[in-house]
Amino acid sequence: MEKNRTITFKNKPRIVSYASVVGKKEGEGPLKNYFDKVLEDAIWDEDSWEKTERKMFKWVIETAAEKGNIPLKDIDVLIGGDLLNQIISAAFAARDLNMCFLGQYGACSTMAQSLIVGSVLTDGYYFNKVACGASSHFATAERQYRFPLEMGCQRPPTAQRTVTGAGCSILSLHGESNIHITSATIGRIIDWKIDDANNMGAVMAPSAADTLSCHFKNTKTCPEDYDLIITGDLGFHGKELCQKIINEEHGITLGANYTDCGCEIFTKDMGVDCGGSGCGCSASVLNGYLIEEMKKGKYKKILFMSTGALLSPTSSMQNDTIPGIAHCVVIERLEGE
Amino acid sequence: MEKNRTITFKNKPRIVSYASVVGKKEGEGPLKNYFDKVLEDAIWDEDSWEKTERKMFKWVIETAAEKGNIPLKDIDVLIGGDLLNQIISAAFAARDLNMCFLGQYGACSTMAQSLIVGSVLTDGYYFNKVACGASSHFATAERQYRFPLEMGCQRPPTAQRTVTGAGCSILSLHGESNIHITSATIGRIIDWKIDDANNMGAVMAPSAADTLSCHFKNTKTCPEDYDLIITGDLGFHGKELCQKIINEEHGITLGANYTDCGCEIFTKDMGVDCGGSGCGCSASVLNGYLIEEMKKGKYKKILFMSTGALLSPTSSMQNDTIPGIAHCVVIERLEGE
Repeated sequence: MEKNRTITFKNKPRIVSYASVVGKKEGEGPLKNYFDKVLEDAIWDEDSWEKTERKMFKWVIETAAEKGNIPLKDIDVLIGGDLLNQIISAAFAARDLNMCFLGQYGACSTMAQSLIVGSVLTDGYYFNKVACGASSHFATAERQYRFPLEMGCQRPPTAQRTVTGAGCSILSLHGESNIHITSATIGRIIDWKIDDANNMGAVMAPSAADTLSCHFKNTKTCPEDYDLIITGDLGFHGKELCQKIINEEHGITLGANYTDCGCEIFTKDMGVDCGGSGCGCSASVLNGYLIEEMKKGKYKKILFMSTGALLSPTSSMQNDTIPGIAHCVVIERLEGE
Repeated sequence: MEKNRTITFKNKPRIVSYASVVGKKEGEGPLKNYFDKVLEDAIWDEDSWEKTERKMFKWVIETAAEKGNIPLKDIDVLIGGDLLNQIISAAFAARDLNMCFLGQYGACSTMAQSLIVGSVLTDGYYFNKVACGASSHFATAERQYRFPLEMGCQRPPTAQRTVTGAGCSILSLHGESNIHITSATIGRIIDWKIDDANNMGAVMAPSAADTLSCHFKNTKTCPEDYDLIITGDLGFHGKELCQKIINEEHGITLGANYTDCGCEIFTKDMGVDCGGSGCGCSASVLNGYLIEEMKKGKYKKILFMSTGALLSPTSSMQNDTIPGIAHCVVIERLEGE
């Protein structure tokens, strides 16, 4: 067994409710019917995109609570984060909802990271109901990490489009839901010395392959044991790289049951270069499409992994490279439990 | 009982090792003999202050491991963060040490937040050894949050000096140490609509009072039950405000056994305005002075609370106010356990 990185949850926390919201472009993609709300424009009646992102974050928590008939005051703590500096989307949403808050930062791996921390808090009987959430917005991410959209910079073919979206899962040991979190593997930081802020797929693929192979080894499972293995936002290029790396380094073949949220939320012909990215990508796909299809019975056991590129303008401007990290959780539909 | 915000740790995780490093100015203050290392200058042979901060973060983890005779590879996961955008000090330290990483962001409340997450992970038998850390650096914080030092801006009397320092505690259920984490209370975000980035004490005092009063209520304790109650970085002004708020709103008197790390690490005559602040303030005071004095027997039961101002240039530039958050843990010296 590899280093102790894998957790098995004895009490199998349930995803008792969930919600997602996405932007207009995401609402034109193949998963459009799965989201609770599709925005009509990028601004949603706010006066800045940052405030829109915060509104999305707050909305998914409120909506997840409402869908699950859970009074907001019954949520013990909010675990989550986003890409904006000082995770203001999550923090200000927590402020407005008067919630206890443990802010997480794992770049685009935040949804899985929050689910891991949330699962530990419920599985270990520390808290009763925990909300886990993440968000991102195309316009806020571009201007913070790359160039303001108004500059009209040309994007290289490896660029990805940050998903405008947010997702929230509410975890508890008790409830009607038969969707459970059963295990998780925590990521370590892998740096293949890529320094191109427009090639996030390549930054994250090595850490995705590392966490996946570790998870298979520690849980004595193989890719065929899952109905679906889905990474967060490697995109079209990163997905291929991940398959190549895990095959060459670990002899593992990720086949037809493997995909990536960033390749599912957009199609190649939507003008999104290498597909979707951002915290909101895996957060909205999980809390829209994936859980919905698990409830319908299409998938019974999913390996869900969010992938993060620890890109920082501060470190990039000091000639640092961009490391990656990836965390995964196993989500299972358990009959009669 | 108030809302479920308090955790009691059944297995009382031990602080099995700890380490701290501070800058030159902190090394001239009253706690100078408690730190494992005092830097000779602000740069420590690096080519930027950001890289110095990262070096401090890495150093405290390595040193805590070494002091506890713990091989670095035995540390299952690093929980921590810092004030720099995308928490690069913690993330790059984790990269260099090849550690699994769950990045935390709670502004200056990060040390207590990391101890809470780390305590849950060990107390619940999820991991064996967890390192919890936080750092800050005067020069990196000033240029990211306020003005570059080179501008020589005048600082108002309510300003605090961000501590150049880092601290790390290694937690485990097993080991020689008799210093245990026994309970914790998670903070919620309180916003008294202060928008002055040079008045952090006033931003954080209401949340400190809120978490403290909630902790007393939930654990049925009062200030006299602790040998020491110590907040993170309220500073001279914020400490007084906290005493005033908790007295007026909750009828609780914080007396002679109450102090603040920011008031302990510097004296008023050191030209530091309202005292120390930053993640590194409570992190270095805990992992230098506090644990050392608990080992010697001066303190047997401490209520340690880190306080965070969720200041973000992104939100401030959009006319947002600055919310505060505070998390606390109870640290006890238990004989014969």
